[in-house]
Amino acid sequence: MKINGKDARSIRVTSSQNVEIIDQIQLPHRYATVSLYTVEDAARAIREMWVRGAPLIGVTAAYGVALGLKADPSDAMLERAYTLLLSTRPTAVNLRWALDRTMVAVRSLPESDRCEAAYAFASALAEEDVVTNSALGDHGLTVLEALWLRRQAEGAERLNILTHCNAGWLATVDWGTALAPVYKAFDSGIPVHVWVDETRPRNQGAALTACELGWHGVPHTVIPDNTGGHLMQHGMVDVVIVGADRVTRTGDTCNKIGTYLKALAASDNAVPFYVALPGSTVDWSIRDGLREIVIETRDPREVTHIRGENSAGDVVAVKLTPKDSAAANYGFDVTPARLVSGFITERGVCAASEKGLLSLFPQEAA
Amino acid sequence: MKINGKDARSIRVTSSQNVEIIDQIQLPHRYATVSLYTVEDAARAIREMWVRGAPLIGVTAAYGVALGLKADPSDAMLERAYTLLLSTRPTAVNLRWALDRTMVAVRSLPESDRCEAAYAFASALAEEDVVTNSALGDHGLTVLEALWLRRQAEGAERLNILTHCNAGWLATVDWGTALAPVYKAFDSGIPVHVWVDETRPRNQGAALTACELGWHGVPHTVIPDNTGGHLMQHGMVDVVIVGADRVTRTGDTCNKIGTYLKALAASDNAVPFYVALPGSTVDWSIRDGLREIVIETRDPREVTHIRGENSAGDVVAVKLTPKDSAAANYGFDVTPARLVSGFITERGVCAASEKGLLSLFPQEAA
Repeated sequence: MKINGKDARSIRVTSSQNVEIIDQIQLPHRYATVSLYTVEDAARAIREMWVRGAPLIGVTAAYGVALGLKADPSDAMLERAYTLLLSTRPTAVNLRWALDRTMVAVRSLPESDRCEAAYAFASALAEEDVVTNSALGDHGLTVLEALWLRRQAEGAERLNILTHCNAGWLATVDWGTALAPVYKAFDSGIPVHVWVDETRPRNQGAALTACELGWHGVPHTVIPDNTGGHLMQHGMVDVVIVGADRVTRTGDTCNKIGTYLKALAASDNAVPFYVALPGSTVDWSIRDGLREIVIETRDPREVTHIRGENSAGDVVAVKLTPKDSAAANYGFDVTPARLVSGFITERGVCAASEKGLLSLFPQEAA
Repeated sequence: MKINGKDARSIRVTSSQNVEIIDQIQLPHRYATVSLYTVEDAARAIREMWVRGAPLIGVTAAYGVALGLKADPSDAMLERAYTLLLSTRPTAVNLRWALDRTMVAVRSLPESDRCEAAYAFASALAEEDVVTNSALGDHGLTVLEALWLRRQAEGAERLNILTHCNAGWLATVDWGTALAPVYKAFDSGIPVHVWVDETRPRNQGAALTACELGWHGVPHTVIPDNTGGHLMQHGMVDVVIVGADRVTRTGDTCNKIGTYLKALAASDNAVPFYVALPGSTVDWSIRDGLREIVIETRDPREVTHIRGENSAGDVVAVKLTPKDSAAANYGFDVTPARLVSGFITERGVCAASEKGLLSLFPQEAA
């Protein structure tokens, strides 16, 4: 997508085979790129969340292995890089998946070929992500085009899309998942406007989604997470599109905490609620999202404190709660499939059900 | 209620007939009382939100008239005090109601009697608020006692109550509305635990509800507004109790933005959802909350910025959003009566319907 009119991606290889990322911790206040020179740099970038979002974490880890092999192509380094990178975000399924695939791609090669093969594999993984999300975006575009035709006929001046958290290109390599259809619609001339849930506690909406939409020129408005229900009651949301961290075989959707509340409001007001996801997000081994998905609890400090830019222009953390009050920080919730209007995937749009998913991914029928 | 074991109220008259309030802007970081000496002081306290909450605003305004008449009991002062105080929060229905009643109580008196009568009236208004909320709390207690008996029989170790925003004693003179039943239950030995929605954008939950519950010793946990749905899906909320800014004749409930989302989640998970309100909150002249209640939009800066305590111990505002991103700030939403399990009032508990409300307030049948 664009930053001030120039094409950008969330990760790229420089001419000297280093890896350049955006330091997302500093967004939306500073735009700064960081060069990663070693496997340790890559591990730190993932651990400290300079990069986040499952697809981008996976690609960064693959490049991390390449950086390690550039210094030392031995088996010992390969094992060390794998272990080090895997330890950075132990619950990220995509991280292990990407690392395992990287290992398969390089382990059996002679040492002299490993580094080049690792870079080639990481680049292919990045390219695969871009192609997948672009295809997903094209399928989502057909949904938005149909909605816009209807709304336009009713006299609407813009198509209002609500999204929660950040499922944009900053979470992937390019396009994003939930935002891919939005960018495609914007680029094709549909007058989209995005309601951006700020997404407490980490505020990925206010910090990242608003940032990348602004860079690309997409009209948007940041709202507190409390607001979406009111907007839907008053016809101010035409469609909700969110991403997913994990989707069960039956369509239950695990995504950022608060997604379920927006799905309830969409259902109560007959607003279409779509989940955009690459097929790799489906966990075909589980059926009941509420019973089978364990929800990660995170540091309460993300609730009691918040980072922002003070009047001197410094980014600082401030405390929001009384000093003796406890806080709880559940990272995700599960939206039952019954509340999801459909899934937007790289293979097309389908119903949020086992039958719907299998219609696009028939190889998973067992 | 208690602050560190000592009885406290949100407003009181000192021995020298000044009026002492808590500067709520500084909570939860500093506890500071402020003395109001003049009608201008009272107006400033309301305008700058050192005091907030409809009942407390009304009582502060009545005391403001008394402070004015202490300096000058003339008709001119009376008019000036009325106009000045009314201008501080133009949309606060309770403010006008309290000022009108104060005028009726003092205007026809000789100048020499006005000041004393104004203090007496303001004190009576404060006492009326305390008595009303205490009665409301007693009725709410019966609801919580019944719930706790059932939960206890099921082996529960605590009664989990979720609340949104601040409808506690800091919004009234004492007891509060939504929190009155909670304090009564805690004082009677029921092991209550309160999930406190932080309530973005102004964070009245994290700042005020957590603060007053902590002062009184009530166990509580602050959560992002996104969290309640997940908790309800997993049986971690036994009852939701919220306050109300305005309730229609038919039971539609206007309250802090985000209340509707919690009501949807409660309904989806069969969690009882109660609204606690004094009868004066019912607007008998309107029926359809969604169509007839105009929702106030507030300064977007409340969304783009937040106040908190920095590491040096100073309370500062920090910016959360990109500099060019718009933000929207809707103050309230309307929860349809169909999602409300019941109303807790000073006259008893009733169904959230016209029939239910009229069973307690038969004089309003027309």
